[in-house]
Amino acid sequence: MTDVLAVPVEDHLALSVAVLTRLGVPADAARAQADLLLEGDLRGHASHGLRRLDMLAQRLRSGAARATAEPTLTWTTDSVLTVDGDGGLGPPTARLAVAELLGRVGRTGVAVAAVRNANHLGMLAPYVEEMAAAGVVGIALTTSEALVHPWGGTRPLVGTNPVAVAVPVPGGEPVVLDMATGQVSRGKVLDHAARGLPLAPGDAVDAAGVPTTDAAAAVDGAISPFGGPKGYALGLVIEVLVATLTRTALGEDVRGTLDPSDPSTKGDVLIALDPTAFGAGGAEVAEYLAVLRSATPAPGHDRVLVPGDRARATRAANLAGGVPVAQGTWARAREIADDLTEGDR
Amino acid sequence: MTDVLAVPVEDHLALSVAVLTRLGVPADAARAQADLLLEGDLRGHASHGLRRLDMLAQRLRSGAARATAEPTLTWTTDSVLTVDGDGGLGPPTARLAVAELLGRVGRTGVAVAAVRNANHLGMLAPYVEEMAAAGVVGIALTTSEALVHPWGGTRPLVGTNPVAVAVPVPGGEPVVLDMATGQVSRGKVLDHAARGLPLAPGDAVDAAGVPTTDAAAAVDGAISPFGGPKGYALGLVIEVLVATLTRTALGEDVRGTLDPSDPSTKGDVLIALDPTAFGAGGAEVAEYLAVLRSATPAPGHDRVLVPGDRARATRAANLAGGVPVAQGTWARAREIADDLTEGDR
Repeated sequence: MTDVLAVPVEDHLALSVAVLTRLGVPADAARAQADLLLEGDLRGHASHGLRRLDMLAQRLRSGAARATAEPTLTWTTDSVLTVDGDGGLGPPTARLAVAELLGRVGRTGVAVAAVRNANHLGMLAPYVEEMAAAGVVGIALTTSEALVHPWGGTRPLVGTNPVAVAVPVPGGEPVVLDMATGQVSRGKVLDHAARGLPLAPGDAVDAAGVPTTDAAAAVDGAISPFGGPKGYALGLVIEVLVATLTRTALGEDVRGTLDPSDPSTKGDVLIALDPTAFGAGGAEVAEYLAVLRSATPAPGHDRVLVPGDRARATRAANLAGGVPVAQGTWARAREIADDLTEGDR
Repeated sequence: MTDVLAVPVEDHLALSVAVLTRLGVPADAARAQADLLLEGDLRGHASHGLRRLDMLAQRLRSGAARATAEPTLTWTTDSVLTVDGDGGLGPPTARLAVAELLGRVGRTGVAVAAVRNANHLGMLAPYVEEMAAAGVVGIALTTSEALVHPWGGTRPLVGTNPVAVAVPVPGGEPVVLDMATGQVSRGKVLDHAARGLPLAPGDAVDAAGVPTTDAAAAVDGAISPFGGPKGYALGLVIEVLVATLTRTALGEDVRGTLDPSDPSTKGDVLIALDPTAFGAGGAEVAEYLAVLRSATPAPGHDRVLVPGDRARATRAANLAGGVPVAQGTWARAREIADDLTEGDR
C-alpha cells in the first residue's frame, strides 16, 4: 500500500514522546508509553500503534488519563502485589509492576500483580516477553470494553479480554501467545464497514444476534467469541477472574480505553512463575518446538509455526526496514505535536 | 437410550471402590478415584466416568499405576509446591495437592502446585470447584497425549491439554470453565467412526491434514484445535508451560493415560489465588452474571448460560435421578469386580 510509511524507529519514538511530554507526562513514563505504541506498529498491529496516540492525547487533555500519576504498589503478601495506577498511563504502570514481580519471583517462585486504575496497557506481549527474557514464565490477563456477545446472546456483554503468555525456552526464543478472545477486533469491523468489505463467517452477529458477514450490520451487532462456546467461556472467565482480583468493573461498566473522557475501569492481572523454583532438570521444550517447526504442512499451509514466530519475524523485518505507519496516522500525530508546540496545551 | 442405566450414587462409588481396593489401592485413595469417576458420569461425560475403570484396572495390574504409591509433596518456596505422585492414581495425588494449597493460600495469597508422575486426574472441574468452595480462585492445567494437529500441520503433535478455572462468586455459584483445547474428544471420533456418523466441519483432519467430516478418516488423522490458530496457540502454550513447570514430557512423549502399561509422563499445574489477599471490596460479579443469564437469546438459542451452569444442572438432575452409565460399562465393571473376588489378582 502506497499510503504506508516506513518510519525510522527513533522518529516513531521521538514523535510519541514529544506529544506526551508536551502534555505533561514525565519523560520516563512517556518513553514507556512510546515503546508500547512502537511495539504495536512493529508487529503489524496498527490498532495498538501510533494510531492510539490521538486518543491518548485526548484522554490526557480531559484528565481521564493523568499525566503526572503516581502509582501505588503494595505487597499485600510476600507474593501478591496490588497496584493502583492513580489514573495514569498503562505502560509505565505495568512496567513498574513487572519490575517488582521480577525482583520478587526469584525468591518466592510465583508472584502476582493486580492492577487497577491504569489506562490501556497496549499489546500484552511485551510485558510477558520481558518476564521470559528474565527466564520467568509470564501471564497477562486484561479486561476491556464489552464488544463480544455471550454464546447464544445478541448484545455485546463481554470484553475482548486478551490473554498473553510467554514461556522461556532454554537455548531458544520464548513461546509467546498474545490474543484477544474475540474472533476479530472492533477496528477490523469498523474498517471493513467503512470500505464495504465483508467479514468472514463466524466473525460477528448483527443486532438481532444472527451471524453476519456484513460489516455494517456487525457494527450495530457484536463481535463473536473466537472458537464458539469454548472461546466465550474463556473470555468470560478472564472477565470475572480479573475483575475479582483487581476489584474492577465488568461487562458494560468497563470503560475508558475507547473514548476520550471516561475513567479507565478495567483491570489487569500479571503472573510471574520462576521455573527454577520448581526443580532442576528441564523439559525438552526446544527439541519439541523443533519437531513442530519442521512438521509437514497441511495442504494450503506453508509451514507450522510456534506462537510468537510470526510476530517475531514481522518485528525483525520492520526493525530493519522501517516501522509501518499509515500516512494519515503519521500526519495526525505530527499535527498534534505541532499544535502543542504552539502552546495549545 | 434404553441401554443407559440410572445407577444410585452409592452403588456407583461402591463398585469403583471394590475394584480398586481389590487391586490393592488403600481405601482413601480408592474413594478419591471413585469420586472422580462418579463426577464424570454425573456431569454426562462418560469418557471420564466409570468407563475408565477398566483401563485403570489394567494399569494397576501392569504396575503403570502404583496401587500403594506414596506421593511426595515439597514446598520449595513459601508458595510453590512440587508433587511427585510416585506413579500413583491421579485423584488422590491431586486432592492432596489441593488440600496443601488451600492450607497455604490464605496466608500467601497465591500458591502453585506442579504435579508429576501421577496418573490421569479425570475431570479437572472438581479440583478447581473445591478451591472455589473455599473462596479461592482455582486454575488447573494438564498435558495429555498428542491427539491434536498444530495449526497448518497434518499429524497429531499437541495434547488435548485441558484447562479448568473456577472463580468464586460471593452470594452465588462459582463460574466454572472446564474444557479441552481440542475441538472434539478422541472418544467422540472413535465412537462416530464405529457408528458411521459424521463429524462436524472443523472437528478433525485426515491423515493428509485435509479437514474431514469422515470420522473413520479422522481416526487416522488428527483432532483439530478448537477455534483455529488461536485454540492451537492456547493448547500449545499449555503444553509448554505445564512441561516447563512440572519437568514432564511434551508432544508424542506424553504417555500413560490411554494405554494399559506406559508410565504416566504428563504433568499437572494447579494454581490457587485468594481474592481476600488482593484487597477489600469485591467486584459486582453476581450482578453481572444476572445480566448475562437474563440476556435476550439469539435465534436458535434458548438462553444465555454462564460457564458451569450446564454441568451444574446436569449433575443435579443425575444426582436426583440416578447416575447415567451405559449398560455395557456397568456390566464390564461388575465383571472386573467379580473376577477379582475370585482371587484373580
